[in-house]
Amino acid sequence: MFTVDLNCDLGESFGRYALGLDAEVIPLVSSCNVACGMHAGDPLVMKKTVAMAADARIAIGAHPGYPDLQGFGRRDLNLSPEEAYAFTVYQIGALAGFCAAQGVELNHVKPHGQLYNRAAVDADLASAIAQAVCDVDSELVLVGLANGKLIEAGRARGLAVAQEFFTDRNYTDEGTLVPRSRADALIADEEFAVRRAVRAVKEGTIESASGKTIAIQADTICVHGDNAHALEFVSKIRSALESEGIEIKPVE
Amino acid sequence: MFTVDLNCDLGESFGRYALGLDAEVIPLVSSCNVACGMHAGDPLVMKKTVAMAADARIAIGAHPGYPDLQGFGRRDLNLSPEEAYAFTVYQIGALAGFCAAQGVELNHVKPHGQLYNRAAVDADLASAIAQAVCDVDSELVLVGLANGKLIEAGRARGLAVAQEFFTDRNYTDEGTLVPRSRADALIADEEFAVRRAVRAVKEGTIESASGKTIAIQADTICVHGDNAHALEFVSKIRSALESEGIEIKPVE
Amino acid sequence: MFTVDLNCDLGESFGRYALGLDAEVIPLVSSCNVACGMHAGDPLVMKKTVAMAADARIAIGAHPGYPDLQGFGRRDLNLSPEEAYAFTVYQIGALAGFCAAQGVELNHVKPHGQLYNRAAVDADLASAIAQAVCDVDSELVLVGLANGKLIEAGRARGLAVAQEFFTDRNYTDEGTLVPRSRADALIADEEFAVRRAVRAVKEGTIESASGKTIAIQADTICVHGDNAHALEFVSKIRSALESEGIEIKPVE
Amino acid sequence: MFTVDLNCDLGESFGRYALGLDAEVIPLVSSCNVACGMHAGDPLVMKKTVAMAADARIAIGAHPGYPDLQGFGRRDLNLSPEEAYAFTVYQIGALAGFCAAQGVELNHVKPHGQLYNRAAVDADLASAIAQAVCDVDSELVLVGLANGKLIEAGRARGLAVAQEFFTDRNYTDEGTLVPRSRADALIADEEFAVRRAVRAVKEGTIESASGKTIAIQADTICVHGDNAHALEFVSKIRSALESEGIEIKPVE
Repeated sequence: MFTVDLNCDLGESFGRYALGLDAEVIPLVSSCNVACGMHAGDPLVMKKTVAMAADARIAIGAHPGYPDLQGFGRRDLNLSPEEAYAFTVYQIGALAGFCAAQGVELNHVKPHGQLYNRAAVDADLASAIAQAVCDVDSELVLVGLANGKLIEAGRARGLAVAQEFFTDRNYTDEGTLVPRSRADALIADEEFAVRRAVRAVKEGTIESASGKTIAIQADTICVHGDNAHALEFVSKIRSALESEGIEIKPVE
Repeated sequence: MFTVDLNCDLGESFGRYALGLDAEVIPLVSSCNVACGMHAGDPLVMKKTVAMAADARIAIGAHPGYPDLQGFGRRDLNLSPEEAYAFTVYQIGALAGFCAAQGVELNHVKPHGQLYNRAAVDADLASAIAQAVCDVDSELVLVGLANGKLIEAGRARGLAVAQEFFTDRNYTDEGTLVPRSRADALIADEEFAVRRAVRAVKEGTIESASGKTIAIQADTICVHGDNAHALEFVSKIRSALESEGIEIKPVE
Repeated sequence: MFTVDLNCDLGESFGRYALGLDAEVIPLVSSCNVACGMHAGDPLVMKKTVAMAADARIAIGAHPGYPDLQGFGRRDLNLSPEEAYAFTVYQIGALAGFCAAQGVELNHVKPHGQLYNRAAVDADLASAIAQAVCDVDSELVLVGLANGKLIEAGRARGLAVAQEFFTDRNYTDEGTLVPRSRADALIADEEFAVRRAVRAVKEGTIESASGKTIAIQADTICVHGDNAHALEFVSKIRSALESEGIEIKPVE
Repeated sequence: MFTVDLNCDLGESFGRYALGLDAEVIPLVSSCNVACGMHAGDPLVMKKTVAMAADARIAIGAHPGYPDLQGFGRRDLNLSPEEAYAFTVYQIGALAGFCAAQGVELNHVKPHGQLYNRAAVDADLASAIAQAVCDVDSELVLVGLANGKLIEAGRARGLAVAQEFFTDRNYTDEGTLVPRSRADALIADEEFAVRRAVRAVKEGTIESASGKTIAIQADTICVHGDNAHALEFVSKIRSALESEGIEIKPVE
């Protein structure tokens, strides 16, 4: 039987600043990545987010990012691998504190934003992050871009890994994301995006931007709860996956 | 046989800003309280500090403080109990991450600065902190001011508690610290301070500022590694305690 | 002829975090208070906000607050007067930089949140803030709570002052705000609030919570652009004031 | 008559964290660059530093840096030119606030750390910074690396510029700094460094790392007050310059 995880970033509010329709998207996904206070989130938000996820029985992951609230973790801070290691340990630990306090398990780690993007292509950064995850808790699942360096680094350390698939992005013939600078980076056609996700899960292949069939492993699909339209898309893809007999369940 | 713990705050450097003679004071103490990145410390400093403490086999504690790097955790931020709870969970978790990563045990939690001071007198804040410790890991020892509210709050939750004694501070007849605003707040005579510490450990009493004999339990004594003079005092008190047959060992 | 200023806090967004319907409220007010990056706002937001206000030809003021992004400047940080002075100079200067860069005048200074609240009742804090304003630019108008300590402190230094009136708050017989802890702190009846504002401007009196007629000087009225309902209220009060022949214009 | 400026970074302390022997180096230099609270410094430190510099009658400059206290402004944050512009305006404005409050003139702007380094080679960043300086106050002197892009950008806007010379760094044949990654980046021989500085000021040339004579304009020489040894070197170079009849005075 086919299975796939639907994951969503949660807990991105900060103080009086609210972001994301967390309560609305939670029933639609099987796992979440909780911001850890560096690029988004704060201790009160983390506590509340873990409680909401625990109530809904979805898998909880740490979502460490660059220490850059103003840039939302999307600027490339050029942290050294040693810094990235320490910041990753710190953030996983902080979220694990809230999980322990609420008696729920921390399931996985998925880096955020530019930390995620660079970890997919920079072997040194990928190694630092994978080592941090391994050192804090070797039972954690490491989530990274399918076919990326972070997946390699996790495997090399014996970690369980989960390859993430983006339904709304085009891929190169090499199986990496078409850069956002290219005109064909994004896929606007939602029906096509959904069909493609189903194919990725069931067949392990998609069509690249150039039309070539390429291998892709879609252990988990990234969805968003930013606004009403995003929520509709999550419902749509969830229904499509389920109607194809694909079970939606967390990575493990 | 008599025992007492000597504890010191460590890991208070931040980025390029160095504070404390950590390497020099570590051989003189039995336990340390490591700053967790809110009032002092950063992930790189935390990693290094845990490694140094682990090498020296001293007990490692979390030293959560108010989120106030500029004020060094000494300003009264007026966090609500709910905020204090969440910030305490966060900081304990973050430090526990580094302990886990290095395979050493997190032994205790001692709040820092104004969080410590208020937790000694404010029952709601004390409850919030004790609950946070209890929720993250009920095996942790909670360190607080002798005779203070935090000790009460820890006991009420079944936590192991350790009462902290300050050799350089005068006490009221009620067993609390003479406020710093009073002229007799501090004890300048080091010989007297040392004799008083020995008496506190062996007899459980000291003389208050008014000359009355009061009960005080000295499970752990706070020492400092800020400068050369502070280090000399730690050596002096350590020698005095040992020459009285008192064993220096961590709280547990 | 009667005149009054309608002022609104602007520029409270931060990085990816959006707050306030700034573009919508600007056409309805005569002056704005721009967050200066400590409790809200960031340099990009400040630049954009000054540009919007300049385009609309409304008066621009600095809105210094406690350095507390997470608490939105609403926690009482207990800064010393010396700290408050320095933080106020810093924030006025930063905003003045953007005004200078865009060739517009900085008109006034209104403290934010808890800094505003405390400056209304704490003479030492009020003095520190008034002195900061005076030192940076003695031509600036100092805006504070009507009948409060900040107004006194500004007058004592020869600053032009503007007394602020809150239409949605009840007042004590002494002319200060009924504390939010009291059940009658807020005025829910918008029609009454509007009539009261008109009376305050034209007659210089209102009815206190206890029903007594008290003196109040309403140089400027605080309005909000947080949401659609708030905007409607601004339109309503603006129309009411204008239909009474009251001119809406900045404090000076 | 020959003249040159000796400039030193000041006001890099933060809260309880002390950096730099500011009081000791001030009598030895003709101008200073004051940290503006983003990579170092805080409002209290800025106030005190401006007062010390004003007392000593040395020229005061703003020293804007990347918003990165932990990295001390030395990490490459990859701010966009638009962000760099806004952060530069903000920081110049904030320091100008303290200068205005103390009735002293703000003389110049010198970017700090990685902002300085990148502005020397990245034309877009250089343009953003030069434009910020020009917009806030076109009378300010813009200080940048001799032969660098920031100097070009300042000149293009009609700003007075000052070219900075580093006595302890080797230069390429093109007149730029030998990268720190090269073994010959630094000049350890202090006597040689001093003679070289004298030659740069009097003749406008130095010997490059490869031994070639290259043109360099040394309007201002960067010195440090970090420690006792650094102070000795400032005394030494100051004496050498003066004994050669070179007047030490601020850029203008």
